[in-house]
Amino acid sequence: MLASPMIAQTSPKVTWRMTSSFPKSLDTIYGGAEVLSKMLSEATDGNFQIQVFAAGELVPGGAPAADAVSAGTVEACHTVGYYNFGQDPTFALAAAVPFSLSARGINAWHYHGGGIDLYNEFLATKNIFALPGGNTGVQMGGWFRKEINTLADLQGLKFRVGGFAGKVLTKLGVVPQQIPGGDIYPALEKGTIDAAEWVGPYDDEKLGFYKVAPFYYYPGWWEGGPTVHFFFNKAQYESLTPTYQSLLRTACRAADADMLQKYDYKNPTAIKSLVGQGVQLRPFSPEILQASFTAANEVYAEMEATNAPFKKIWESIKGFRNDYYQWTQVAEYNYDTFMMIQQRDGKL
Amino acid sequence: MLASPMIAQTSPKVTWRMTSSFPKSLDTIYGGAEVLSKMLSEATDGNFQIQVFAAGELVPGGAPAADAVSAGTVEACHTVGYYNFGQDPTFALAAAVPFSLSARGINAWHYHGGGIDLYNEFLATKNIFALPGGNTGVQMGGWFRKEINTLADLQGLKFRVGGFAGKVLTKLGVVPQQIPGGDIYPALEKGTIDAAEWVGPYDDEKLGFYKVAPFYYYPGWWEGGPTVHFFFNKAQYESLTPTYQSLLRTACRAADADMLQKYDYKNPTAIKSLVGQGVQLRPFSPEILQASFTAANEVYAEMEATNAPFKKIWESIKGFRNDYYQWTQVAEYNYDTFMMIQQRDGKL
Repeated sequence: MLASPMIAQTSPKVTWRMTSSFPKSLDTIYGGAEVLSKMLSEATDGNFQIQVFAAGELVPGGAPAADAVSAGTVEACHTVGYYNFGQDPTFALAAAVPFSLSARGINAWHYHGGGIDLYNEFLATKNIFALPGGNTGVQMGGWFRKEINTLADLQGLKFRVGGFAGKVLTKLGVVPQQIPGGDIYPALEKGTIDAAEWVGPYDDEKLGFYKVAPFYYYPGWWEGGPTVHFFFNKAQYESLTPTYQSLLRTACRAADADMLQKYDYKNPTAIKSLVGQGVQLRPFSPEILQASFTAANEVYAEMEATNAPFKKIWESIKGFRNDYYQWTQVAEYNYDTFMMIQQRDGKL
Repeated sequence: MLASPMIAQTSPKVTWRMTSSFPKSLDTIYGGAEVLSKMLSEATDGNFQIQVFAAGELVPGGAPAADAVSAGTVEACHTVGYYNFGQDPTFALAAAVPFSLSARGINAWHYHGGGIDLYNEFLATKNIFALPGGNTGVQMGGWFRKEINTLADLQGLKFRVGGFAGKVLTKLGVVPQQIPGGDIYPALEKGTIDAAEWVGPYDDEKLGFYKVAPFYYYPGWWEGGPTVHFFFNKAQYESLTPTYQSLLRTACRAADADMLQKYDYKNPTAIKSLVGQGVQLRPFSPEILQASFTAANEVYAEMEATNAPFKKIWESIKGFRNDYYQWTQVAEYNYDTFMMIQQRDGKL
């Protein structure tokens, strides 16, 4: 029943700026903010507008995006919490930390395991209100100029890798390097660095790393299911009408899901293309994975001992992580395993 | 910048009825329609209302829900396409068919692989417009009174299982049974049937099947990532303003994601509880899985030979299925495998 008459509704004009931590060249991850903006505008006849700015247009990429939201310089940003790891490692927990939940698990925790509320309890002290706004799926472990098989191969390895993983890998002898995305290729080419991680096949292929570092390792155990977030200045979010708050939550959920769906569609084609260009896929050895897991747990213990908000959130994730991996090893894992065997046998 | 003044907007009053194919007792899957209804109502100050009716309140559950939408008796339903498998097996393809994509894969196909448009090209001939509206994740293979290990154990097995899987299992000697949910328990108890499949741990536990059929098999290869859909009467959908159409699409995406997140949160607790009550978990043997896969491919070939719309959609899914399982066996699979090993070793 579509009934007349038209009802006059008061729909406030809201114009927000959202600074993205990402360049436009990362169309999948940068595009998440544009997906949200379009959904909001269309659902409100153009009255709720979010103008998206790429990294550097208003605010530099990385940590400054969240800082600008916290200060109220911009109303919103699209970022990954771990960019602000240096200020407080708690920022990273709902984004990605080593050996945490993969995408479906972290989403179950965000939306039904109390994750959104726990993260916002911490972020409220920074004047930020956050909602999940995308996921890349498990990332790759990065591009290496030489094969690494043993822990000895990690000694002195100059690896372009971010905050939390860098802290873990330092315990194993790696020398983490901080290099902006655009400078990675020449550094790998000249051998200034030995390895670099970026995202996954779809994003990595565009930067051409395979030409200068042919060994492509997996999995990126420091980003098992990284959540990108929308951060909103808390006072700005609270100034919205309940109608707009609800719409914003709904649209964020849709945009959140969309990013993973895009990656899951684009990565399969990209990995085929990369392998076709001579990329050598290599799994991290059990020795390296197990030592990394042990080192990560040492870092967690150190942080939990001195940081109560960190401990509260990490204990919540850990509890669910155990239950989640117990269950998924039953039906999901066995189904996928069977299907992968058929794929390898050329039967799909 | 939150700016005045308030803008008068014309927001039409729309009141739709949505009949669910599910009873309220399946709170997770039935609840998906209520999640959508709440999102729409809140985003429109109550002007876009969808009234949800449980199976049997307006229309019986199962196939009649889609029939009612097609006929325009109700504006919308929340259903699984395979309920209408008997009318045309094409209905089942975007829902769940044997050995199709698991949840993340089918979502990539729906939203970025052209799946939504392909399914709607078929459904347009039935006056239906469909959007994904939930996913249960890989289902379990069901409850068995006795262990089944070989193909011989399937001969004459009276198994309560639905349309497409029933057709495949018939080739292996199984005798499929059609029994409403409420009648399964006594039939299992009396031995009128030998086995029954339902959903997964969270839903199954409530029905208590473990008391009368202790062997709980996995995976449910006929439902690797079943998509629940919102079906709308096509003319009704098209009569909506572009604003409401866009809002409806956004809200459906959010509700779609929510259901899987709920299952992924609830199933881990339920499987622990079931095992604690003595349930015996059993994987289908490689012999049975492989024979089922072969039989399913025979059924697909038969259907493709006589049903052009079926062939068009299934070829699209199959093409992506091969690429998807090639990619996910790299980073995702190895990450999850490592985490599951830690879980089994008590290290999470």
